[in-house]
Amino acid sequence: MAGAKAARKLRLHVTHSDTIVPSQRLTPERLKSAAKAFPGLLGKVEISYGDGPEALDAVLGETEVLLAAGNVPLPSLAARAPRLRWLQSCSAGVEKLLPYIPAGVTITNASGVHGPRGGEYAMTAILMLNSRVPAFVTNQQRRIWDQMQTTPVAGKTLVLLGVGAIGGVAARLAKQFGMRVLGITRSGRPQRNVDRMYRPKDLRRILPKADFLLGILPLTPETDGLVGRAELDLLPPHAGVANLGRARVMDYDALAEKLRRGELSGAVLDVFYEEPLPEDSPLWAVPNLILSPHCAVDDESVYVARCLEIFFGNLKRYLAGRKLESIVDPKLGY
Amino acid sequence: MAGAKAARKLRLHVTHSDTIVPSQRLTPERLKSAAKAFPGLLGKVEISYGDGPEALDAVLGETEVLLAAGNVPLPSLAARAPRLRWLQSCSAGVEKLLPYIPAGVTITNASGVHGPRGGEYAMTAILMLNSRVPAFVTNQQRRIWDQMQTTPVAGKTLVLLGVGAIGGVAARLAKQFGMRVLGITRSGRPQRNVDRMYRPKDLRRILPKADFLLGILPLTPETDGLVGRAELDLLPPHAGVANLGRARVMDYDALAEKLRRGELSGAVLDVFYEEPLPEDSPLWAVPNLILSPHCAVDDESVYVARCLEIFFGNLKRYLAGRKLESIVDPKLGY
Repeated sequence: MAGAKAARKLRLHVTHSDTIVPSQRLTPERLKSAAKAFPGLLGKVEISYGDGPEALDAVLGETEVLLAAGNVPLPSLAARAPRLRWLQSCSAGVEKLLPYIPAGVTITNASGVHGPRGGEYAMTAILMLNSRVPAFVTNQQRRIWDQMQTTPVAGKTLVLLGVGAIGGVAARLAKQFGMRVLGITRSGRPQRNVDRMYRPKDLRRILPKADFLLGILPLTPETDGLVGRAELDLLPPHAGVANLGRARVMDYDALAEKLRRGELSGAVLDVFYEEPLPEDSPLWAVPNLILSPHCAVDDESVYVARCLEIFFGNLKRYLAGRKLESIVDPKLGY
Repeated sequence: MAGAKAARKLRLHVTHSDTIVPSQRLTPERLKSAAKAFPGLLGKVEISYGDGPEALDAVLGETEVLLAAGNVPLPSLAARAPRLRWLQSCSAGVEKLLPYIPAGVTITNASGVHGPRGGEYAMTAILMLNSRVPAFVTNQQRRIWDQMQTTPVAGKTLVLLGVGAIGGVAARLAKQFGMRVLGITRSGRPQRNVDRMYRPKDLRRILPKADFLLGILPLTPETDGLVGRAELDLLPPHAGVANLGRARVMDYDALAEKLRRGELSGAVLDVFYEEPLPEDSPLWAVPNLILSPHCAVDDESVYVARCLEIFFGNLKRYLAGRKLESIVDPKLGY
């Protein structure tokens, strides 16, 4: 009878990428703690934990739900995970998981988890660019005392590429600082705290108006390479660029060239084509460029808790046969 | 008759330090432009221009009013400027001029000119410190990929050393970001946007509560060395330090040692004991420290215009025999 009862439990597997930092690890203790807000839920689930291909191989045949933190390298699942119905990612961006997910498996992401902290770092990046901090830092390395004055950000124009959770908070903060905010999304629909919305086809028309260009887009077939050399060339030379979403949205070779030639005032990047950024990447030493290692939008105090809150909310819906939240459209990629 | 008429005109001399940047220069055109808001005023004044000791020597005997931009090196004026009654400085800090000013000469400063832009940079510094940008920059130079997550600034504690024009704006912005703001001034009187005010004698008691310590004090006998080694040792190791007022308020040797030992999370400095910072200063290469060359609080769009607005407002009062605004108390030093 115990065996029959166990068989009725939903089989959940929890897995991590091998680069996950300890604060982002989905430990049994953290799951237990987060589940307190959802009484009775844990009793309906049989949970296994394990990272890497071997651990996955051992459980995939039975797994119905996969909870994944980080960019977990998933082998092709179609044949090996016949019971898989739902994958919950603890990332907002899932472009590396998508190619492996069989049709019919629902993918949900942790959209929104980066909002408050990510929006704060986006505003930090804009303020740094406005104050010429990337140039101060480059001059400091060269022991050069070069007084560069600037003007307040109030009245300057921010072009937001993507107005999701991070972009929404960034827009609100930018308005608090008196900025003009132009936004670009696929639909171009009106957004709170954004003065005017555009669609990707309008990009070239509005780039010349940008004092700051902030990229916070997911990587999708539509956003891949959206800001190429021609687009960067449309920015005024005093403009600053920040990219906090996905790297491949921008042409970093062109960006680096423009920074070396002084054709942009500075740049702030948190995301890269290859992560960790290889030690021999020329990006490390590009002048007027400040890099952070894909962590600046993460909030260590709430990251795991918020991911698990999203997950357990969805698990409750799943068990009740209701529609999940934050479902990724595989065609759109987000 | 023309000579008699000229003799009745007030003799004003305009002078600059030799390090002034072009955007801060008080040119005849800029004076003329700023004077438009004060009809008839320029007709009552005879203006001479000249920088350096020789130019001053040539006019000091007749000069009644001196308008000085930058830290003008003034020789002892007592014997050589018998008619000098008023010195208007275009700086907020006048500690380098004070020793040269004879008793009986009124000194006014440009207090408030740095408020909006200075407050914005103060908030920029706090946000950079919160995001560990000084550490990102140090790691970037060493090509080290070290993901450091943080939490939003909301709820964290800012200790403001000085609540003048810059501090007032910084406090308002910090409150907008949800921070707790503790302020220290000589009087300890309540200030808008500051949750609680203290006096310098309370400093050691509140430093352990600081997530961020922001110095924006003038240099006076009371503030000289206020934040020494013992005070810095009271800060928690996760705290960040910024200094945008005058350098000698803090012990930079102790600060650098603590940064090298990882006993503070980072620092942002805009002011130095000697400026320009000498090329062989060890400060250039201290880890987790971002330097800017004493310009980050200046607003190139309004600096001169605002200085001249203060000056001409005071000139109108002077000619009418009324009390000037922004008078410096030589005993207090600000």
